Amino acid sequence: MTASDASVPDELYAELTDSVRRLVDVAIRSQAGPTAFLAAKTKIDDAVAELSRAPLADSFGIRPAPDGTSRAWGNVAMGLRNPFAPPLVVHHDADGGVWADVVLGAAYEGPPGHVHGGICALLLDHMLGATAHKPGRPAVTGTLTVRYEMGTPLGPLRAEACVDRIEGDKTFASGHLATAEGVTVRAHGVFFHPA
Amino acid sequence: MTASDASVPDELYAELTDSVRRLVDVAIRSQAGPTAFLAAKTKIDDAVAELSRAPLADSFGIRPAPDGTSRAWGNVAMGLRNPFAPPLVVHHDADGGVWADVVLGAAYEGPPGHVHGGICALLLDHMLGATAHKPGRPAVTGTLTVRYEMGTPLGPLRAEACVDRIEGDKTFASGHLATAEGVTVRAHGVFFHPA
Repeated sequence: MTASDASVPDELYAELTDSVRRLVDVAIRSQAGPTAFLAAKTKIDDAVAELSRAPLADSFGIRPAPDGTSRAWGNVAMGLRNPFAPPLVVHHDADGGVWADVVLGAAYEGPPGHVHGGICALLLDHMLGATAHKPGRPAVTGTLTVRYEMGTPLGPLRAEACVDRIEGDKTFASGHLATAEGVTVRAHGVFFHPA
Repeated sequence: MTASDASVPDELYAELTDSVRRLVDVAIRSQAGPTAFLAAKTKIDDAVAELSRAPLADSFGIRPAPDGTSRAWGNVAMGLRNPFAPPLVVHHDADGGVWADVVLGAAYEGPPGHVHGGICALLLDHMLGATAHKPGRPAVTGTLTVRYEMGTPLGPLRAEACVDRIEGDKTFASGHLATAEGVTVRAHGVFFHPA
């Protein structure tokens, strides 16, 4: 099974994930009739059958890559193989700050036309964690406080975060989400580095 | 277009959504080879084409149902047509408290084998909001504070929330996530009722 896994190019994993993202979007927004829905369901179930030979017994976890790095391809925020992930592609600045540009569509809706507040919290938890994380010293969230200053419309967003200070084994980080009109949500959090 | 939309039974929407959920799960966990991935991608793209006739121009929003209630079927936490939604089925107790049982699989992963902290925040934001929400008085989140007491393993979870007190236009709510072993994450939040 590992041999066949290794032979799928990363690009094909990414392309399949993108196809599933498009499917999720249109499954929500389609106004097609029952004939099209039934036909689509058959095709989806066939695709599930194609992929169902020898799945992993568990979730993806973190697995070694051939180049010595590690892969968290199932991660719901940034995993290459997780269609729920927008995905967040986190960029690291020289000063330790992080940022990501993301476009959130209909699948992330809470209030009409707006990003669900819990998705805002997901993005911010991930970004604050990414800035608190150091190589070989993974960070886990202790507390996260999210302040909603205004609704966050669906569409393009920028997420940013940085470390405010480090005290012993605690890292204090903060960040925000912003549209072209300004900041919509702010967060701060305390992260720990488990021994 | 509205006529064809109305003719799809709710059950078929729910079944298609479930099929997409299974697809998301196996897209992450499959160990099939490139031939199966290519074949699956073709079927998925065909399903997208089936459903792509006349999609809504925007997100689903909140739309009236024939029985006079309203539908938030695109909602990422509980929407009938959103495959990202576990879905959260919120039960209301007589005393105003809310609870939901949910099973989270590989698609919600953060740390290996565990629910992403941001997904915990999403569930709690939604549950706290559900208890603060009153008919005709929708609640929006002002602040949400999430305290991670231990890792939340993937699998079955219970989410609970209740209103602690109401002060003017602010509703203070709290809640938690728990496994059979006990509480893993606690949250409290302040909600507003926009005029």
